[in-house]
Formats: sequence, C-alpha cells, structure tokens
Amino acid sequence: MSRIKVYLAGPEVFLPNAKEILDQKSQLAFDAGFEPLAPLDKEIPPAPTRHAFGVAIYQGNLGLMNKANAIIANLTPFRGIAADTGTSFELGYMTARDATAFGYSNVTLPHFERISAHYTANGGQITHDGLHFRGPDGLSLENFDMIDNLMLDGAIIGNRGGFITHNAAEDALYTDFTAYKQCLEALSKLA
Amino acid sequence: MSRIKVYLAGPEVFLPNAKEILDQKSQLAFDAGFEPLAPLDKEIPPAPTRHAFGVAIYQGNLGLMNKANAIIANLTPFRGIAADTGTSFELGYMTARDATAFGYSNVTLPHFERISAHYTANGGQITHDGLHFRGPDGLSLENFDMIDNLMLDGAIIGNRGGFITHNAAEDALYTDFTAYKQCLEALSKLA
Repeated sequence: MSRIKVYLAGPEVFLPNAKEILDQKSQLAFDAGFEPLAPLDKEIPPAPTRHAFGVAIYQGNLGLMNKANAIIANLTPFRGIAADTGTSFELGYMTARDATAFGYSNVTLPHFERISAHYTANGGQITHDGLHFRGPDGLSLENFDMIDNLMLDGAIIGNRGGFITHNAAEDALYTDFTAYKQCLEALSKLA
Repeated sequence: MSRIKVYLAGPEVFLPNAKEILDQKSQLAFDAGFEPLAPLDKEIPPAPTRHAFGVAIYQGNLGLMNKANAIIANLTPFRGIAADTGTSFELGYMTARDATAFGYSNVTLPHFERISAHYTANGGQITHDGLHFRGPDGLSLENFDMIDNLMLDGAIIGNRGGFITHNAAEDALYTDFTAYKQCLEALSKLA
C-alpha cells in the first residue's frame, strides 16, 4: 500500500537548525504512516545570481508539492501577527490541487484578537462603523472566529482537514511539535 | 474574441471604501481589454455563524478564481513587513491553476531590507553566521534580491508575469493605481 505523501510547509526553513527540525518533523510523519516531503529535501544547484538561486528554490518546492497528496501547514504567526506568506502561498497551491489540508498554529490567540492587539499596542483605538470593526488606519478587522485570514481557515476546513492551535512557549514557537503531532493523528484517521 | 478574465487579489477588501476602490480597479481592467473578477463581485447569503459566513466568502472567492485565467495580486505589505496572507494564498491557488500571474507592491523597499528594518527598529542586531544573515531571534533573512518571500516572487516570474513596485504615498498605500496600471499594460502586451 503506498503511503500518503505529505508536504510539510512552514517557516522552520528559517531556523538556525532548520534541517534538524525538519528531519524530526519528517520522522514523526513517517512514524505516523506517511511519506514526508519537506522543503529542504532537495538539492539546489549553484546559480549565477541570488535571484536565480531563489527562483530555483521556488521551483524545487513546487516539484515537491506536485508529488504530494496532502499538506500540513505551520501557520504560526511569523515576524508579525499573521502566518508566513510563503506557507500561505503553498496552502493555496495545494488547495487548487485538491490536497487534504491541515494547518496548525503555536499561538492560540485568534486572528481578530491578534489584529486588535497590533493596533492597541501602538496606542490605536478600535472603532465600529455599524458594520465592521476598524483600526485607526481605517482597515477593517476580520471577525469570523477564525485563526488567520479566511482564505487560510476556509481552505483547511473546506479540504477535509482541521486547524489545530497550541499555546507554545515563546522560545519554542517554531519547534514545539504538539499541534503538529495532532495534525498527523487527525490525518491518519482520515486516511 | 473573449476577454482574458483577471482575478484582482489584494487587501483593498479591508478599506472603508473597498467597493469603490475595487470598482475603479475593475473599470481600469475592463478599459485595458480584460474581464475583471474582484473579490466583492459576489453575493454572500446570510449564515448561521460568523465562522460559516467567513467560509462562504472563501468559497465565493474560490468560485471567482476558478473562472479566471490570470491574476494581478496587490502584494503591498499589510499590517507588517509582508504581503497579506489571503492574497498570498490566492497567488498560490492561481499558480497551481497555471494562470498568468502579475504582482505589484506600493512599497519599493525590498524584502531583505524590510526584514532588516523589522529587527533594527526594535534595537535588534543583524548578524552573519558565514552562510546566512540572522535576526536576534536566530531566524534567517531571505536574501535573494526579491520583493517578498521567494514563493511569491518565484511564482510571478515563473508564470510569464512581472512584479512591479512603486513608491506610493503613505496615505495612498492601498489606493495608488500606478503599479497596478503598469501590470495591466504588461499583461495586455502578453495577451
């Protein structure tokens, strides 16, 4: 029986021990019965420019995603209040490929509360115009009881998956595997 | 001859005058010879919960994207240093559908410099470990002469399109159409 191939999307690639952490995630996925495909599971040949090297990494990631039937996306807020844009892109890519999509965040504070905190931390006031809550810049606050932007939550709920949150310690924001393991377990039950 | 259908992705949906701005973008796309598809070009029926309403908006956006052959994504930094996660998702979705992809940002500062500023604004030091620049949190700074995460730049360059930047005024960050019009013009030349 062939294993379900799971693409492991997330900002772990930026960690000092990226390879080690991704290898641990891959091992956990393998132990749960899957064939893991992680962003560092590829060789990128030298390129004439930094830009060309970046495009080659992009193409490598696309190649891995094109082999996968499922995605587990680490949507923990990254350098701000929202998920990593690269991971968000990858969730969109896999959604169009009709992959089973799971997501997790190592921050439990919902999207609406994170946006609110973004404004109030800088002394800004949240107002309500009768239809929407708005920040001092006039931008509306998404208020759908979701974990991130409705495209991310919608894709995960819409594609048979689940969005799991866990309140990780500050220094383990991208290395705590609690929610990730719950995604693997939930995906196993579907498979 | 049927018009190319262009999905207009971007965080304009959060503006107080979202409908007006998106209608202006749609008119400009129509005048350039395209059939525009904007996120507010749909009716969302009432739903029993906020979450269900959010999922219905997601499904509506998917329906619009499934009709489109091209995407112009407004990737101007949104509430932080990176593009909107919903727009990033949509660019990924359309990339998997092999759509022609254009992107623009109304901020000209490149990705590496925006991340650097994110750290140094809070008094943080950028270091170099021989292979990567890293923030005080240990996370590496993408350094590929790109405008945003390499998945976004890669998709736009890889899908026949172009990524255009323009230095808009602070109070016109989501309403300045200079770069958007350049995307329309570039897409016209391809078509």
